[in-house]
Amino acid sequence: MPAQMQQILDAINTDLRDDPDRGEVASYIPELGQVDPHQFAITVATADGQIYSAGDATTRFSAQSITKVFTLAIALGRSGDQLWRRVGREPSGTAFNSIVQLEHERGRPRNPFVNAGAIVTTDEVLAGREPREALAEFLSFIRAAAEDDDIHINADVARSETAHGHRNFAHAHFLASFGNLKNDPDKVLGTYFHHCATELTTTQLARAGRFLIGADCHPRMVSLDRVRRLNALMLTCGHYDGSGEFAYRVGLPAKSGVGGGILGVVPGKASIAVWSPGLDRNGNSKLGTEAMERLAREMDWSVF
Amino acid sequence: MPAQMQQILDAINTDLRDDPDRGEVASYIPELGQVDPHQFAITVATADGQIYSAGDATTRFSAQSITKVFTLAIALGRSGDQLWRRVGREPSGTAFNSIVQLEHERGRPRNPFVNAGAIVTTDEVLAGREPREALAEFLSFIRAAAEDDDIHINADVARSETAHGHRNFAHAHFLASFGNLKNDPDKVLGTYFHHCATELTTTQLARAGRFLIGADCHPRMVSLDRVRRLNALMLTCGHYDGSGEFAYRVGLPAKSGVGGGILGVVPGKASIAVWSPGLDRNGNSKLGTEAMERLAREMDWSVF
Amino acid sequence: MPAQMQQILDAINTDLRDDPDRGEVASYIPELGQVDPHQFAITVATADGQIYSAGDATTRFSAQSITKVFTLAIALGRSGDQLWRRVGREPSGTAFNSIVQLEHERGRPRNPFVNAGAIVTTDEVLAGREPREALAEFLSFIRAAAEDDDIHINADVARSETAHGHRNFAHAHFLASFGNLKNDPDKVLGTYFHHCATELTTTQLARAGRFLIGADCHPRMVSLDRVRRLNALMLTCGHYDGSGEFAYRVGLPAKSGVGGGILGVVPGKASIAVWSPGLDRNGNSKLGTEAMERLAREMDWSVF
Amino acid sequence: MPAQMQQILDAINTDLRDDPDRGEVASYIPELGQVDPHQFAITVATADGQIYSAGDATTRFSAQSITKVFTLAIALGRSGDQLWRRVGREPSGTAFNSIVQLEHERGRPRNPFVNAGAIVTTDEVLAGREPREALAEFLSFIRAAAEDDDIHINADVARSETAHGHRNFAHAHFLASFGNLKNDPDKVLGTYFHHCATELTTTQLARAGRFLIGADCHPRMVSLDRVRRLNALMLTCGHYDGSGEFAYRVGLPAKSGVGGGILGVVPGKASIAVWSPGLDRNGNSKLGTEAMERLAREMDWSVF
Repeated sequence: MPAQMQQILDAINTDLRDDPDRGEVASYIPELGQVDPHQFAITVATADGQIYSAGDATTRFSAQSITKVFTLAIALGRSGDQLWRRVGREPSGTAFNSIVQLEHERGRPRNPFVNAGAIVTTDEVLAGREPREALAEFLSFIRAAAEDDDIHINADVARSETAHGHRNFAHAHFLASFGNLKNDPDKVLGTYFHHCATELTTTQLARAGRFLIGADCHPRMVSLDRVRRLNALMLTCGHYDGSGEFAYRVGLPAKSGVGGGILGVVPGKASIAVWSPGLDRNGNSKLGTEAMERLAREMDWSVF
Repeated sequence: MPAQMQQILDAINTDLRDDPDRGEVASYIPELGQVDPHQFAITVATADGQIYSAGDATTRFSAQSITKVFTLAIALGRSGDQLWRRVGREPSGTAFNSIVQLEHERGRPRNPFVNAGAIVTTDEVLAGREPREALAEFLSFIRAAAEDDDIHINADVARSETAHGHRNFAHAHFLASFGNLKNDPDKVLGTYFHHCATELTTTQLARAGRFLIGADCHPRMVSLDRVRRLNALMLTCGHYDGSGEFAYRVGLPAKSGVGGGILGVVPGKASIAVWSPGLDRNGNSKLGTEAMERLAREMDWSVF
Repeated sequence: MPAQMQQILDAINTDLRDDPDRGEVASYIPELGQVDPHQFAITVATADGQIYSAGDATTRFSAQSITKVFTLAIALGRSGDQLWRRVGREPSGTAFNSIVQLEHERGRPRNPFVNAGAIVTTDEVLAGREPREALAEFLSFIRAAAEDDDIHINADVARSETAHGHRNFAHAHFLASFGNLKNDPDKVLGTYFHHCATELTTTQLARAGRFLIGADCHPRMVSLDRVRRLNALMLTCGHYDGSGEFAYRVGLPAKSGVGGGILGVVPGKASIAVWSPGLDRNGNSKLGTEAMERLAREMDWSVF
Repeated sequence: MPAQMQQILDAINTDLRDDPDRGEVASYIPELGQVDPHQFAITVATADGQIYSAGDATTRFSAQSITKVFTLAIALGRSGDQLWRRVGREPSGTAFNSIVQLEHERGRPRNPFVNAGAIVTTDEVLAGREPREALAEFLSFIRAAAEDDDIHINADVARSETAHGHRNFAHAHFLASFGNLKNDPDKVLGTYFHHCATELTTTQLARAGRFLIGADCHPRMVSLDRVRRLNALMLTCGHYDGSGEFAYRVGLPAKSGVGGGILGVVPGKASIAVWSPGLDRNGNSKLGTEAMERLAREMDWSVF
């Protein structure tokens, strides 16, 4: 398999890196808007400890919403099923930044991966502490998962998100108006914008995602039961209003970020990280999705 | 495994058939409202051809929305990906009978399992024919899948659904107003109410569901690619606005019906049918879901 | 005043009948789509019994939603305030044919002038009778109000509306699904499509509208209290989602129809009918609104 | 008339001040929650310069949303019809603090009287200045209108509103996310919370409202054309989602505040201020509405 895997990744990289139809790079903050759209990287970390990469797998990119998986794991570790009193587990049927559902369901976000839900999760992780303490716990977790301490937060990106984050401020205050925020909105968003500004390579991300493979995979960060539940949430809600489409085409639990990265999981077998900055109309990496679809088909990895 | 499987099913049946908290039986038509809520049945059909049952596995119940999986398979067989021009593949974020999304998205239902989507699928199967011809094709398909010709439609139930089906008539006319209905609304709904009125036992349903197991499973009704896509849709949309919850708790593709049945699939391994008439607040079988959750856990069958 | 009034109407007619920017004629049924958009008519019926007209004031046009005012008056005469259990009195904030509000407010239309509300009003007028009996009462009322028996329903238009009326069928069945329809949906819609298909001239319409002038105006069809309430509803809800705009620009209670007519009321002083087939984006007569605005300003007739 | 007017007001005061069914006092901030619900006041200022009062007409109450009429008049004076690019003129069909419409219409509030619309109006008045400058202009305007310099802002109330104003912060940031806020959200809300915290008596409010009577009424603050338009907006949108009901029952342009006050206008004749702290379910003064309804009927003042 190793030879075959490397060949598949190389072929995907060769075919996709010159694809002219790459989607649109996120431009709501300059730090993301200036990223070269022609980059592409893919890494697979297998359950037996192997790492396979192709493309720009040593270039760091902004993880953005992919970090929501890690903060969710931490929040569940801290609060257990209490968290579900504050946030639901259903696909939203609306855009990641829609506030309509939040009003209809009186301040309880549909799931932990839409922005409002991730703000609640971050609030749960913050838990009365200072943002830097919560961020230290977050970095600790993701570094331990990747077994790599060279993972950092880009403070410029976090600052820029704050300056352009009116929609997220609206969500945080709206949550607060329903009593569903325990900490000060500014502190919660400070923490949120910072963990989203984590930068890593596909190699680091694929390694960090191994804790979701389950089975006897190393390192064990959370229980197998919780791994399955995190994967279920990633499959049903991980791509916002494109989650059904991703499940249909790829058939794997995965979480996308507006920086163009996607973290995918093959239960029992592998963790996958892809990165291509251009996004489709739902805000998910266009070529990243195609790479995942092709890899899953060639490896026969669909969970279905 | 055979001995173990039978033991598990027997234990589930023993524990659940006396559970006092059984949910509410659907009462919008008398034929469903009069069903004895104390019944319970479970059947597993494995990829290697074995059948295991416990409880009232020879009692027929109304399949209702579970038939949407079969009409979807037929519609895709007739029209292929053209179908997706008329209906989406995303979870709805709303109740099975909500019309709000349909107005917001200008007459294109979110997925083939909400009522409006299933009406479109039925319209595609009807394809200019008379309802009895489309229903003959439907019965043919489900009987061939189950390898059992003793599966029938209860005309009384269909008639009663028609008499109480104002909400579905509203959906059909609404679809027609957007040009998303090719046949006369009355004919489409006549066909729709009839296929939903199919009655079968859990044994028959589990056998009919084998075509979704994939792998080399017998009988092969649709391609493996299509099987995977049907399963993806069942997992993300099969339980209406409780789909995320079902994925989180059970971790298997499944489709529920208001008659209290659930058809679940363990890709590559088994097809499962459970039946208990009482429903939870999302309209899915309460004890049926619990049985599925327990079976999946004990057999380690979650796809995640 | 008589001389002045005729001069004002003549000037409005002269200026508007050659206006090139006339809006779009409704085209959802051929009978409306074929109407010559270059026609224009205006008639004022004063409290003291005078009639002033300009333009095509002897040409008949399709009253459409303007008849909702008359069926509402009849329904209130039959049922009094009981009607308000079934329909609200608030502006909708949505299009005349939106079904979203109806789901959110569980089958109670926002007001009697959106389509769903007018269907409920028609259902109240029908009251278990045959459609022709209800229509006879309706014609009786409008003819008595106009003191003119030469007002008729165009059966071809009614038939065409029925054939293209899927959206209204959706509304009727949706109302029925919430138990807010007493008669069979087909009968209610048959009655609804027929009264909407009433044809009259601006002269006839202005005369028919005199019962809304109030004061000691002849003929007295309903009490002064009810007149005021009908006018309040026309002002807040008479132009669908353009009601606020009409109140802002014109400042008079009025009801528009998709045939291009508008019936306006100057409390205590006059009834106004204008007709120009081209519609603005909210479905209200474009030049009709401009004529009303100009007339109200020149006569100093705004209620504000 | 003078004697009659005083008798009517006295009778209303006598009847309503002991009414046991007074609605609920707003309690979202302690300053409002502590107001004695048994107070009642009514004042009429006529076009000919007379003032008639009954009840607690020298007790100050929090004007709250009633100030939106004054800031709207100022904003229109500064920017004219440019303002309407940023805010609509239609009733909302939703609660005063709903954010759903704002997402559906991409950041353009429905009218200047829902919270989001009043925030935009305040932003237009602020116009790059410091809040205290804008507030000075606002106080100048309302004092000139009332010809009374003893009208002030309660800074404690403004502070308390800020501390409990998450929903309004959500609206402001949401507007900013669509580019529909020119000034910093904190500054706009600081200004907004302060002008809402204006305290005055019914005597002062009725006098301040005289500029909306129109005709040759003293003092003339804005043109007659604008007066009519302000009145049209008050009639269609002045009572949030109870505006249709108020128009139906009372038939006068009016604006309510959560402090229990209502400012009403009888075009050409009078300005009315009522105050009773208890609110109905739409957030409008319960007894204040009843007082308005009775006064309008006895004086035959409905505009309809």
